[in-house]
Amino acid sequence: MSQTPDSVVRTYIQQHRAAFLDDLAEWLRIPSVSAQPDHAADVRRSADWLAAKLTETGFPTAEVWPTPGAPAVYAEWPSDDPQAPTVLVYGHHDVQPAAREDGWDSDPFAPEIRGNRLYARGAADDKGQVFFHTLGVRAHLAATGRTAPAVHLKLLIEGEEESGSPHFRALVEQHAERLAADAVIVSDTGMWSEDTPTVCTGMRGLAECEIRLYGPDQDIHSGSFGGAVPNPATAAARLVAALHDEHARVAIPGFYDGVVELTDRERALFAELPFDEEQWLRTARSHATRGESGFTTLERVWARPTAEVNGIGGGYQGPGSKTIIPASAMVKLSFRLVAGQDPDHVEKAVRAWAERQVPAGIRCELTFSGATRPCLTPLDHPALQSVVRAMGRAFGETVRFTREGGSGPAADLQDVLGAPVLFLGISVPSDGWHAPNEKVELDLLLKGVETTAYLWGDLAEHWRHAP
Amino acid sequence: MSQTPDSVVRTYIQQHRAAFLDDLAEWLRIPSVSAQPDHAADVRRSADWLAAKLTETGFPTAEVWPTPGAPAVYAEWPSDDPQAPTVLVYGHHDVQPAAREDGWDSDPFAPEIRGNRLYARGAADDKGQVFFHTLGVRAHLAATGRTAPAVHLKLLIEGEEESGSPHFRALVEQHAERLAADAVIVSDTGMWSEDTPTVCTGMRGLAECEIRLYGPDQDIHSGSFGGAVPNPATAAARLVAALHDEHARVAIPGFYDGVVELTDRERALFAELPFDEEQWLRTARSHATRGESGFTTLERVWARPTAEVNGIGGGYQGPGSKTIIPASAMVKLSFRLVAGQDPDHVEKAVRAWAERQVPAGIRCELTFSGATRPCLTPLDHPALQSVVRAMGRAFGETVRFTREGGSGPAADLQDVLGAPVLFLGISVPSDGWHAPNEKVELDLLLKGVETTAYLWGDLAEHWRHAP
Ligand SMILES: [Zn+2]
Ligand SMILES: [Zn+2]
Repeated sequence: MSQTPDSVVRTYIQQHRAAFLDDLAEWLRIPSVSAQPDHAADVRRSADWLAAKLTETGFPTAEVWPTPGAPAVYAEWPSDDPQAPTVLVYGHHDVQPAAREDGWDSDPFAPEIRGNRLYARGAADDKGQVFFHTLGVRAHLAATGRTAPAVHLKLLIEGEEESGSPHFRALVEQHAERLAADAVIVSDTGMWSEDTPTVCTGMRGLAECEIRLYGPDQDIHSGSFGGAVPNPATAAARLVAALHDEHARVAIPGFYDGVVELTDRERALFAELPFDEEQWLRTARSHATRGESGFTTLERVWARPTAEVNGIGGGYQGPGSKTIIPASAMVKLSFRLVAGQDPDHVEKAVRAWAERQVPAGIRCELTFSGATRPCLTPLDHPALQSVVRAMGRAFGETVRFTREGGSGPAADLQDVLGAPVLFLGISVPSDGWHAPNEKVELDLLLKGVETTAYLWGDLAEHWRHAP
Repeated sequence: MSQTPDSVVRTYIQQHRAAFLDDLAEWLRIPSVSAQPDHAADVRRSADWLAAKLTETGFPTAEVWPTPGAPAVYAEWPSDDPQAPTVLVYGHHDVQPAAREDGWDSDPFAPEIRGNRLYARGAADDKGQVFFHTLGVRAHLAATGRTAPAVHLKLLIEGEEESGSPHFRALVEQHAERLAADAVIVSDTGMWSEDTPTVCTGMRGLAECEIRLYGPDQDIHSGSFGGAVPNPATAAARLVAALHDEHARVAIPGFYDGVVELTDRERALFAELPFDEEQWLRTARSHATRGESGFTTLERVWARPTAEVNGIGGGYQGPGSKTIIPASAMVKLSFRLVAGQDPDHVEKAVRAWAERQVPAGIRCELTFSGATRPCLTPLDHPALQSVVRAMGRAFGETVRFTREGGSGPAADLQDVLGAPVLFLGISVPSDGWHAPNEKVELDLLLKGVETTAYLWGDLAEHWRHAP
């Protein structure tokens, strides 16, 4: 009886499962918390450990790349097929802070398997999802009888993602030639649920803005002057109130310029997802949904641009009262952007709008930061099709589509390398990213291994360079 | 050549000027700072000093009234005319904090006469303006040959005005029978300027409100949830923005119920004042005027009710950014009220309005405090006419009318005693209340003495009780 490639892959994974989990556990024991300076040596140790493991896996090149902060790991395994596409896998080896007393049932840096789950800080975010590529590429070689992958395979695993990736863009720019790729595969997201495998097709972009409003030269008495001079806290509030129209649509002229609207097919696909609004509200810790008219909750968080107030402040905020007109007030806004929107254009639109809103006698200063472009891969992109097929083979189920409402360093790869960004993740919402008792489902982790074992062959077959 | 009563008064004042100023200086040396606990003994000493001085002046009754905080002083000098009206003078013997290093040119508690000014903390606010009553009543007796004043004269001089008068209303309620009066004369305000003697005819009232808005049960990620759940900071801002309509008129239904509108005569009298808007803006440390359409700046601060934001806060206010939807937000509002408005009615109107504004999914809690009723004495009130005539005799000039935009404990006297409140003050805007180098103009201080020397006789003549 001849083996199909799929059964070869599965058998190979079963045979190497124990060693794979032992290795992952060893890596998880390194508390590579990038946000805590006293763990800087651990983050370096984590990078060294990974580079050595990738060399052991077979990558001819595996290097630790220093940055002014924590180091990244870069590895490369060229295909023996010169027409094969080049794929760059992105992930991170640093983790969120964690301490047993935060509510962990076991030491966050002493990985523990309970039932069919592996509990440890980084199990899902992101060491587990980086590590499945090691066994995945070995299974791919074993099943195909190759000695090099079917695609030119590159890995860039950064060490500061949980600290806001402060040096990531510069690192990518510095190494742009070596990082050049036809597609980027981000291995740092999740899927809809255990029962619903999905591929994420895009992330929202970001523009952040702090607005400072100045009124009187000092706090003045609201009895003596109230009702007769402009109040900067009122001006701040009126700016915020003017952000949205009565349909909860952003009311800044030009804000929606260029927005790539959802297609009917995308909306139909979103609607197929088993969305439970009550459950979603519990996750959001919120007590009602509210958003742009004419769109569902999923459309609002995944595919529509937004304006949110992250902070507002002015005047007296202590106990009791103080009858003043404050000298100044402040608003922190973040705009989530979707495909077609440009952070620079949004900045210009916000500046022009804010200046028109502010009354005479109030001076306003705007400071922008955090500009991140949105990413969106069209549903018919050949690389996305390959991911969907590979995942479908591994899971034996229809693969559906999601998007991600947040923003991430993947956008820097898209911008600098000019490559489309795809997202391949097997984590599920219950994995508890950034929370106590983070875990990964072992079955899903091995489906991740299996997906990548199929993916490189599928990509090489369907998305070859012209000879 | 026979002396007119006015020249008798003036001569009497000149003869006693030096002793009067020496006594005042002695009182000003007591640092009766009610807001600073380490000056509690000084505030008590100030009360004892004043009670002794009032006894020495001739008041048959002069008592120190304890409160749970700092003591007040009460003194009484009945008229020998049973049909005379009863007048209660209100002032305070505590002062604002002051330290040489705040920018004083001399020790704030070592009174110093430079030129024609007396510099000291409390020189104008309020010891000087309390103290002119001592020499005033003596001059009144000297000029009329009486042994008791023409009116039943009562003084209530509190010790916690600069700390918000926390025990004043209870004190007034406790002693309401002894304090009973036909009119209250507040000796704790000022006049338009050195060249423009004025009488204040009213103060605005006050209602304070803190609104807390609760959204998600904790701060949530604006990438994952932004655009799909209500944001309490946005709700807070929209509440504030909804406070006023496009004419800067308060947009809360029912807020203006009962408002006593300015008469044409009052508006004409306000317009006669030599108002310099540029100068006013400098005092307001502000860069533009803004307020209810159809009213002048003076009308806005004196005679129109307002809604002002004293503080607003929610979400992240530190440096940099934090992409959250905050769990809660807060707004502190103060409403200034004018005659005819009732703080309880305003509270009801604000509650109903706020609840209608707040979107589903946001819970709002309102807490009201600081309710103070407005005071307004009609221009034709006989006691007010007496004050105007007495001041006119002292100053030799037309006496005009002002109002006061702030709110004060005088309203408690009006409420509890059911007596109209009049304001007699000789301080000018340059006196620097609550600021370094507080001073009083000696000429004006003595005009204050002279005004009260005429006032009691005028009142008794024009506003007698029916026999
Ligand atoms: Zn991550
Ligand atoms: Zn005062």
